[in-house]
Amino acid sequence: MNNKHNMQLLQELSEKNGPLCVGLDTSASYIPQNIIKSIGSETQAVLEYNRAIIDRIAADKSACCCKVQIAYYEAMGIEGLKVYSETLKLVRKAGLIAISDIKRGDIGATSEAYAKAHFTGDFETDIITINPYMGFDTLVPFSKYAVPELGGKGAFVLLCTSNPGMLDIEHQELKDGRHLLECVGDEIARIGKEYAQYYAEQTCGVFGAVVGATQENYARFLRDKYADTFFLIPGYGAQGGSARIAATLLDKAGGTVNSSRGILCAWKKDAELASKIESESLTLQDIADSAARASLFSKQDLLNAKKSL
Amino acid sequence: MNNKHNMQLLQELSEKNGPLCVGLDTSASYIPQNIIKSIGSETQAVLEYNRAIIDRIAADKSACCCKVQIAYYEAMGIEGLKVYSETLKLVRKAGLIAISDIKRGDIGATSEAYAKAHFTGDFETDIITINPYMGFDTLVPFSKYAVPELGGKGAFVLLCTSNPGMLDIEHQELKDGRHLLECVGDEIARIGKEYAQYYAEQTCGVFGAVVGATQENYARFLRDKYADTFFLIPGYGAQGGSARIAATLLDKAGGTVNSSRGILCAWKKDAELASKIESESLTLQDIADSAARASLFSKQDLLNAKKSL
Repeated sequence: MNNKHNMQLLQELSEKNGPLCVGLDTSASYIPQNIIKSIGSETQAVLEYNRAIIDRIAADKSACCCKVQIAYYEAMGIEGLKVYSETLKLVRKAGLIAISDIKRGDIGATSEAYAKAHFTGDFETDIITINPYMGFDTLVPFSKYAVPELGGKGAFVLLCTSNPGMLDIEHQELKDGRHLLECVGDEIARIGKEYAQYYAEQTCGVFGAVVGATQENYARFLRDKYADTFFLIPGYGAQGGSARIAATLLDKAGGTVNSSRGILCAWKKDAELASKIESESLTLQDIADSAARASLFSKQDLLNAKKSL
Repeated sequence: MNNKHNMQLLQELSEKNGPLCVGLDTSASYIPQNIIKSIGSETQAVLEYNRAIIDRIAADKSACCCKVQIAYYEAMGIEGLKVYSETLKLVRKAGLIAISDIKRGDIGATSEAYAKAHFTGDFETDIITINPYMGFDTLVPFSKYAVPELGGKGAFVLLCTSNPGMLDIEHQELKDGRHLLECVGDEIARIGKEYAQYYAEQTCGVFGAVVGATQENYARFLRDKYADTFFLIPGYGAQGGSARIAATLLDKAGGTVNSSRGILCAWKKDAELASKIESESLTLQDIADSAARASLFSKQDLLNAKKSL
């Protein structure tokens, strides 16, 4: 039995390996046709692509975790979900923390089924993402798995996302002057305090929050208000967020900064590979090398931004 | 190419067969051990259980649709998702509308993957449920499938759920005096109008709304405000909502009223089966008979409540 929960283990690893989270939102369209042909199927190609990248970032210690976006695997049907299951196993075996980006959330009995689905069995992971829209009773079946006996499982709850539509609901101004998302943030912090009883030396809450790297002032406000909450930070890299805003969010309890296409598709912009791309002779090793360089660059970019804060 | 979208087909079938939606939230724990043993595995037992119930309600015309809650199948891993896929095929082949209760929703590129996952391929369905928390840009990849060329696919967006936690976010009072959920309801209605260009004789919007049968006054308010929106109505039966509130929500554009455990577990309360339960000789036929009686009873209960409105 561990005396640290998964969010705390992630917090520690982000100190050791740096704050980068590699997002395995792997679409077969990111993989060169010659590689898919040689492997024989799109789904197997996705698995081998993930394997090559996971192995390199684990060896380089350029990231602390991988976020696996289940939607891309669901889109490939049953075979895709087998690859999803295998990918989670590879991430965890490599000594990295696995975050399953599933954004589930439902009434009690159904959330119980989702918690069983993603904290045990074929799709077992370390930390999931949760959509809190239906209310805080929907979080309880997930937080039950945060006790040491059930693996100290964690969750990042959607707080302030990085898409344009975040204004439609998350940022609605309430009658009492708060933004709606503060209801969610307050509940995440409360759950963190509640579970401190199981972890004597807790350094962050069992539940973290998804906070996009999109607006600097607001990032500072959320970072200060939820000082003990570890953040999962999308919106860096391909989504257009900046390292500076991410660095603000990495302050206090810290966080992990996701980059997906910036790592997965680094080979497309890699000048060294131009002739291989043209001659259709690119290998998985080439792709993993590009991904490794992009990961190390992103890690350094984030650490520099953090220093100059 | 159809001149009616799936929400309209569902609306028509609910007029013909009555408004009952049978919820296939099938947990292996609902199935007697002797049946699981004779079939050989929990997942196959769930499939045969679903098949027996689907066949009966289709033959009896006691329901217009089945809502398949994916969480219960995810909880059984890869094998569970194969059963999920087969169950959707059975519902659609039986001439009923399949609603996949998936409550997905994510940023654009990810919602695209979810739309592909559930509107095509292994998990193809007629109508899904969507969680709108991240904003209205997250709905667009789903509504794109509402055009006739892509199958006139539909979605029920979470509006006013029936769990206690609905007060935490959905019912927050905004600065302008509205409840938050009205932002969502207004957008659903707007999408309905937008897609009228593809369906000359549209009688309800391509997107419907999930509205729980929990408070009568509020049901009337939402029914009148969103007169052209078809509703998916949980909270009837096992969840404790009443037929009278459901009937209010069935007014105007109408809706379909979900019952899950009330149908699936009807055999447990069936006095006729007491001796068979005790002697562990219950068959799938017995269970389907109980489910059929419960479906017909619920259908009549709802039609009576509608008449006495």
